[in-house]
Amino acid sequence: MSQSLTIMPVIGIGEIRPGDDLAAVISEAAELLDGDVLVVTQKVVSKAEGRLVQVDPKIGHKPLVIKESARVLRRRGDLIISETKHGFVCANAGIDLSNVEAGKAALLPLDSDRSARGIRDALTHRFGVDVAVVISDTFGRPWRRGVTDVAIGSAGLRPIVDLRGTNDALGRELQVTEVAVVDEIASAAELVMGKADGVPVAIVRGVEPSWFGDGGVVADVVRDPGEDLFR
Amino acid sequence: MSQSLTIMPVIGIGEIRPGDDLAAVISEAAELLDGDVLVVTQKVVSKAEGRLVQVDPKIGHKPLVIKESARVLRRRGDLIISETKHGFVCANAGIDLSNVEAGKAALLPLDSDRSARGIRDALTHRFGVDVAVVISDTFGRPWRRGVTDVAIGSAGLRPIVDLRGTNDALGRELQVTEVAVVDEIASAAELVMGKADGVPVAIVRGVEPSWFGDGGVVADVVRDPGEDLFR
Repeated sequence: MSQSLTIMPVIGIGEIRPGDDLAAVISEAAELLDGDVLVVTQKVVSKAEGRLVQVDPKIGHKPLVIKESARVLRRRGDLIISETKHGFVCANAGIDLSNVEAGKAALLPLDSDRSARGIRDALTHRFGVDVAVVISDTFGRPWRRGVTDVAIGSAGLRPIVDLRGTNDALGRELQVTEVAVVDEIASAAELVMGKADGVPVAIVRGVEPSWFGDGGVVADVVRDPGEDLFR
Repeated sequence: MSQSLTIMPVIGIGEIRPGDDLAAVISEAAELLDGDVLVVTQKVVSKAEGRLVQVDPKIGHKPLVIKESARVLRRRGDLIISETKHGFVCANAGIDLSNVEAGKAALLPLDSDRSARGIRDALTHRFGVDVAVVISDTFGRPWRRGVTDVAIGSAGLRPIVDLRGTNDALGRELQVTEVAVVDEIASAAELVMGKADGVPVAIVRGVEPSWFGDGGVVADVVRDPGEDLFR
């Protein structure tokens, strides 16, 4: 069915180390087509960018969380919910202790939209394939249990798309409905990454062509604190 | 690729009216296979269940929002963010004014997990196909702009799955990571529903078999207000 979407895990990507060329590694492992959306987890982007720091076992990772935060919103026990310097609201400033070398932690990319653009540009110019790139991370939510993957960076995709701004099927004018497709794509990709261990990349094929374009997650998705009813 | 996921819109479902037999309508329009997850939007479930009420144009829909809410959390201008009687936190108590007959509004199903079970049971017993059912709705989020689809009801699926409770690739024990796959499936389905007008049902094919099982969104996903740091 031409209107269907296929989500494929990219198998065979080994351990990523600081300085690794992610675009080359992904090109080697995946058969990309023009119009694909490539979803890459934050962890491998952070590793490739060398965003690894030593955690002092005597003081733990909390000082790091504070250092990576613009401000702390809530604390409960060991949990710190803060706003990162990018504007993301998440637990522990997005710092990752799992699947990282013992004693080390992976910080978020400094500029996650730039990271996405870097991968996209390398794939376009060196590997000749025109894909959008989404960098995903796993965040909790208020009100709802369980975590879901959302986008922390993107390139080549309009992060928010007005899907229902036209008249509804009954002929009346609808309110604009701005859908965060970039986050829905990150969540969809997670469904195949979670099936196997250590799958840091997935391909989403069949995304509506009109959704490709400019924008980034920090500029388009992060809500201005002044607009936010719950901060 | 056997580990991939396919998401297909179900085309050709016409206007749904109170009393319509959704399982029969869906069976007619879709070729379902055992192991599929069927995602159905709240709007058609509410219509089929006759959850339509008249809106008095003199007073608008706000009294309805208050009536459908367990408590109001925030107000700004015309926007009311409240907790519904199910425990969902959303705008306008999930009441839907678009694509509903003029002068009417669609309320959320009274028990959205029961609605999902009803569709699933009918498909199993009358149409002989063993699928999970997710009822989706479009909610905003704090911190992030744009709306995404989440689950408000489910049947036949474990809404939250521990995906990474085993040792990580580097051999250390990981924290349990409870992933709200039911919400990720709702978001994934929206990506194909938004491509065409008036597509209220999608099929997600290839979902990990171990995710099928018992549970519901209200019991498993709604966070207890006492646990919530932002209410």
